[in-house]
Amino acid sequence: MDIQQALRETPGLDGWLFYDFRGSDPLAYRVLLLDPTKHVTRRWYYWVPAQGAPVKLTHKIEPHALDELPGEAIHYLSWQSLGACLSRILSGVKRLAMQYSPLNAIPYLSRVDAGTIEQIRGYGVEVVTSADLVQRFEAVWDDRQLASHRDAADKLRRIVDEAFRHVAASVAARTGLTEYGLQQFILSRFADHGLITSSAPIAAVNAHSANPHYGPSATGSAVIAEGDLVLIDLWAKRPEPGSVYADITWTGHVGRTVPSKQSEVFGVVREARDAALEFVKARVAAGDFPCGWEVDETCRNVIRNAGYGEKFLHRTGHSIGEEVHGNGANIDNLETQDKRRLLPRTCFSIEPGIYLPGQFGIRSELDVYLADRDAIVYGQPVQTEIVPITVRG
Amino acid sequence: MDIQQALRETPGLDGWLFYDFRGSDPLAYRVLLLDPTKHVTRRWYYWVPAQGAPVKLTHKIEPHALDELPGEAIHYLSWQSLGACLSRILSGVKRLAMQYSPLNAIPYLSRVDAGTIEQIRGYGVEVVTSADLVQRFEAVWDDRQLASHRDAADKLRRIVDEAFRHVAASVAARTGLTEYGLQQFILSRFADHGLITSSAPIAAVNAHSANPHYGPSATGSAVIAEGDLVLIDLWAKRPEPGSVYADITWTGHVGRTVPSKQSEVFGVVREARDAALEFVKARVAAGDFPCGWEVDETCRNVIRNAGYGEKFLHRTGHSIGEEVHGNGANIDNLETQDKRRLLPRTCFSIEPGIYLPGQFGIRSELDVYLADRDAIVYGQPVQTEIVPITVRG
Repeated sequence: MDIQQALRETPGLDGWLFYDFRGSDPLAYRVLLLDPTKHVTRRWYYWVPAQGAPVKLTHKIEPHALDELPGEAIHYLSWQSLGACLSRILSGVKRLAMQYSPLNAIPYLSRVDAGTIEQIRGYGVEVVTSADLVQRFEAVWDDRQLASHRDAADKLRRIVDEAFRHVAASVAARTGLTEYGLQQFILSRFADHGLITSSAPIAAVNAHSANPHYGPSATGSAVIAEGDLVLIDLWAKRPEPGSVYADITWTGHVGRTVPSKQSEVFGVVREARDAALEFVKARVAAGDFPCGWEVDETCRNVIRNAGYGEKFLHRTGHSIGEEVHGNGANIDNLETQDKRRLLPRTCFSIEPGIYLPGQFGIRSELDVYLADRDAIVYGQPVQTEIVPITVRG
Repeated sequence: MDIQQALRETPGLDGWLFYDFRGSDPLAYRVLLLDPTKHVTRRWYYWVPAQGAPVKLTHKIEPHALDELPGEAIHYLSWQSLGACLSRILSGVKRLAMQYSPLNAIPYLSRVDAGTIEQIRGYGVEVVTSADLVQRFEAVWDDRQLASHRDAADKLRRIVDEAFRHVAASVAARTGLTEYGLQQFILSRFADHGLITSSAPIAAVNAHSANPHYGPSATGSAVIAEGDLVLIDLWAKRPEPGSVYADITWTGHVGRTVPSKQSEVFGVVREARDAALEFVKARVAAGDFPCGWEVDETCRNVIRNAGYGEKFLHRTGHSIGEEVHGNGANIDNLETQDKRRLLPRTCFSIEPGIYLPGQFGIRSELDVYLADRDAIVYGQPVQTEIVPITVRG
């Protein structure tokens, strides 16, 4: 199986131990392709050794809980027999991977409870993080996934243009288009283009755009008017199983002349974004794939040097996969120090932002796909200036 | 606040630290009365000291994540500042409780990941289990909850009689009543009595009753006939918020004369059930509340001594609360060794079972409410023999 192949390519690792209690580890369900809605009430373990047959350990009352997986099935009844089974399975094992992250450095990965890690260590086994193994199964794309990303990225790029044209036409016609209305327009364009999304896009004007988590409500969102800054952040994917997301953010100004303060801030954001992209390109071209935190640092330094370090409130970017926030390395040295290496055939966003409370926020987001020796951005052209949204009155 | 009162009554404990990442600790949401559907994307911590003001630590991008809780609000941005905030909050703290269970002895409670526990220990703090604190908030009932249980227990008891009468009438009239039909009948009686349930009751005949997890499907379940053993297990509660469950299991035999093998097995189950109940009554009367595992052991020993130890596949009982499987001590020395003490004003089931594959299973379940000096069973009378379901042809 693929997991055993991956384990054999990881020196010094005897296997990968999966553990779940009532959905406590969503990553186990994803990597093992289990149905997350399945009702399992007792603890289960799945041992995948680098060499030899996997072992499924489930409770006697639910002997079929892991029937869809290969390997020998054994069952425990009492807590004493659970311990005896684990001890037997792990006999001779020196080092294994679990969904464990030392000091909770990567909370997305740190899923196994402290008691279980202690129990496993009690059998004389060293537990290391499965972070890079998870990435390999969750974040690496096949050709169909890459094609689905390219398609989604191209369509989102077109929808950005359509959205800004819709703003121009609505302001000209004084239809009272709100942020919420613009969000709904984008959703309707997703439907027209055959795309689906996990949650609605962001449409925010002026001070609202200074809140990176702003989402317009059905009632009470701002009417978009001449002179407004408009930020849209949209993510979507094709509906076929296995399809992966694209996720981009653009900003526009309703009117011919973008205010100089906004242009200046956009310039800093663009420079940070492009510095991160160039950094990745150069490293990847040299065959030296960087870690997520290094790319964040490169990007963040540009914003710090421009004096806006305190206004960049989030990580530089996130892994992209079947979920918009994927399970590979994030571009993060802020919220976490992501020491995972970026891998070939994975994708992540670069989306620096500067948020000036009470005034406006600027974020520019593109997606970077890593080929074997190149870093590629689909959904061209990328944004180089705040888009003037010209209203013909 | 109540939590601080509970902490001050727990000697040697400086406070209780709650931690959550995207719903990783459902107990935190329950104890703190937070909305579990609330969308929080970053790690949050809530520190409740035995003395002094609580502290809410949330990410700067979600400063309002814990607004509904009392205490000082502080915010982190970087992972370094998260560490600095935690270190400051915990300065001087020697011993705190978290949702931690050594060696994962109680998986329901063992919710905090290993990395986080290591991080907290890194500040020189001893982490102990919050098991008994959680019980106190999750399992202890107020008078209204007790009243809701009494009402539900009385109604379930009546529905058992109605269900067996329905079986008798259906077999007499040859309507082809199936296990599924009986389950649906019980559900309709819940509705008539104004009760709600988390999932459908069990109705199982003969060999099906030997599988403790059997649930009849809409198609293909067995038709109930003369000579069948019928097991029903039903749990429900009143619809008002805060209401708690009742949960009982009865067995009947379609016909006048119960087969002697079934009577014999029922006798063992009854004896085990009553031994557990008497054990609890005696201990509680003496003011010495036992631990969950001790009650299980008392019950299980009766079944072991009768030679059926291997056929009793599950714990003796479970905590009962707003969820049918509640968050107090379980009556368990099988699946886990539940060393939590049973508390006054809590309730649990006693439900030993003997399962003979291919033949039949017998389970008898009642609910025990612990008053200050008494153990009370509502929903009387309890079952003393397999009920003969007499068909008048």
